[in-house]
Amino acid sequence: MIYVFTDYGLEGPYVGQLRAVIAREAPQVSAIDLMHDAPRQDPRRAAYILAALATEFPAGSVCLAVVDPGVGGKRPPVIVSADGRRFVGPGDGLFEIVQRRAEQAHAWAIDWRPGHISASFHGRDLFAPVAALVAKNGWPACSALGDGWRDEPGRPGGDWPDDLAETIYIDGFGNVMTGLRAAAFDKGAKLAVGDNLFRYARTFGDAAPGEGFWYENSLGLLEIAVNGGSAARQYGIGVGTAVAMRN
Amino acid sequence: MIYVFTDYGLEGPYVGQLRAVIAREAPQVSAIDLMHDAPRQDPRRAAYILAALATEFPAGSVCLAVVDPGVGGKRPPVIVSADGRRFVGPGDGLFEIVQRRAEQAHAWAIDWRPGHISASFHGRDLFAPVAALVAKNGWPACSALGDGWRDEPGRPGGDWPDDLAETIYIDGFGNVMTGLRAAAFDKGAKLAVGDNLFRYARTFGDAAPGEGFWYENSLGLLEIAVNGGSAARQYGIGVGTAVAMRN
Amino acid sequence: MIYVFTDYGLEGPYVGQLRAVIAREAPQVSAIDLMHDAPRQDPRRAAYILAALATEFPAGSVCLAVVDPGVGGKRPPVIVSADGRRFVGPGDGLFEIVQRRAEQAHAWAIDWRPGHISASFHGRDLFAPVAALVAKNGWPACSALGDGWRDEPGRPGGDWPDDLAETIYIDGFGNVMTGLRAAAFDKGAKLAVGDNLFRYARTFGDAAPGEGFWYENSLGLLEIAVNGGSAARQYGIGVGTAVAMRN
Repeated sequence: MIYVFTDYGLEGPYVGQLRAVIAREAPQVSAIDLMHDAPRQDPRRAAYILAALATEFPAGSVCLAVVDPGVGGKRPPVIVSADGRRFVGPGDGLFEIVQRRAEQAHAWAIDWRPGHISASFHGRDLFAPVAALVAKNGWPACSALGDGWRDEPGRPGGDWPDDLAETIYIDGFGNVMTGLRAAAFDKGAKLAVGDNLFRYARTFGDAAPGEGFWYENSLGLLEIAVNGGSAARQYGIGVGTAVAMRN
Repeated sequence: MIYVFTDYGLEGPYVGQLRAVIAREAPQVSAIDLMHDAPRQDPRRAAYILAALATEFPAGSVCLAVVDPGVGGKRPPVIVSADGRRFVGPGDGLFEIVQRRAEQAHAWAIDWRPGHISASFHGRDLFAPVAALVAKNGWPACSALGDGWRDEPGRPGGDWPDDLAETIYIDGFGNVMTGLRAAAFDKGAKLAVGDNLFRYARTFGDAAPGEGFWYENSLGLLEIAVNGGSAARQYGIGVGTAVAMRN
Repeated sequence: MIYVFTDYGLEGPYVGQLRAVIAREAPQVSAIDLMHDAPRQDPRRAAYILAALATEFPAGSVCLAVVDPGVGGKRPPVIVSADGRRFVGPGDGLFEIVQRRAEQAHAWAIDWRPGHISASFHGRDLFAPVAALVAKNGWPACSALGDGWRDEPGRPGGDWPDDLAETIYIDGFGNVMTGLRAAAFDKGAKLAVGDNLFRYARTFGDAAPGEGFWYENSLGLLEIAVNGGSAARQYGIGVGTAVAMRN
């Protein structure tokens, strides 16, 4: 199975072109459009969403993930193996959190290049064929990135926190996702966002209509919601706002 | 074949997570994203769209349908069998119209529960695995809901009309769908919405440019449209507006 | 493989209904949602996008393409074969550019009609079953459209240019696609749109932040973009604006 995760949006032919390459190169492998509205051009925030989603990937699966503001620039294309799941995409930190949370992780720079590669669409031309190959248990020409790479100063994502105390995504319902894993927090704690303090509720039905609260979302992340409303609109919260837990 | 029908919207990872469960649990079964912008949190209006779409489902198919404002609350998860098609989702009335229009219908409460179930995402954790199982000709632990359930006072949907004289959905073109099956009406009749009266036209080309009219849409429902325009915008019609036929 | 290209948008059940027909009629064939926001009701501009995308289709593939403002009217349903790829859809010019750029091209009017055909949804009722049949190496009842058709005065698309010096599509990033193939132009040339002149850059990173430029997009078309911004918004460019190259 190939999980596809991008910031391409659903407009245009881009996702379809990616899927067409996978279908052509690995016709026996099923592919899933996991998410195509990852934080745009923002591998840092996307990394925390991807790491949360990746806990559901079975061993042996492949994830093709592309949030790649540096396409055409110097970031290496990489394969990351984390507890038996393989990730293919740009080496811009997107897999940093997945890798850090894994018990076993290895990384490779992809040396293989396709015969033709466009300047702006490495997802279609480079990453999709590699993901298809890996899903068929093949392997492209690669160079192992050893612990040296992991500890390299200036490596993208190397200085990111293990959990991100920020809002990272707003869904179509106006729920506001943070980069914090909810399991770490006491249910009695309050979440502070600017001047607003949110109490915990297990689920929407446990809050009063119109009331804002925090809860553990279905990805395991701490999320702000309003029963019957949009938290983003009601509290004016966007992506990139700092949050803090108060006991 | 599994048809997937939800109100999740296309943003975020929710549809992808549902599809991933189906692909993992029933890899041999093909799944179709039928509609993901069903009337949000509104099983009543969604029920009439689903019933119209369901006339196209072949016998033996499975429909995973989730419009579930009461997730985490008391509504039972159900399987409904209607003329050989099986529906899996919340017992909140979403399958009421399908069931009522079927010659043979049976309903079961799903007793099976997964090892882990999130508070807010029964689609992924409960309904999708059950739909996959049913599509493989399996069956979860269930309790038959007999005629007693069907006649139970207060059963969700029990008091809904056979056809709904309301606008229920506005598509991307601004066409306004109603919950009325068009076949029941004389082509000479006019459709009244507020102060506007619409005459019948067989198709867009039979109306003048900019003219509003009613016609039988491709689902068999009575729909208001404008040749070359948006009926919703031109007449200021939203979802939930009463409509009436005038002879 | 069946590539699906429409102007239906992603809202509503329309794409899902199309895909359901393909899955039912050709269960062994994989289908790809290539693009569903083609220029709406605009076969002329859509024809240049489709022709650019079609260069990626392998021989033997089928493309189901529907941009069909004349549904229910007089345009014939057609099959076009172009260098071994088959296209199924309305004969309203949508395949004109594909056909014109092919070394070998043939066209047929589809004579076959389904038992039931709705007035407004030939995509589901006529084109999808034919595309599925062709993908299974079948063939519906057809009449060859000879060179006579190709040269017929008034044939839709017959008077369109080989390349279109207009903006034809704006993607979710605000990049502005034109109907010109970029390979024909000197990199020293400037692109004029109204009062704005754009210089060439190979990729986003070669322009200054906030700077507009033209480049060859991943479809091979000439496109206007802004490094880190939306060209459509920054320069107020919509679809249908004339463009010109200046040396």
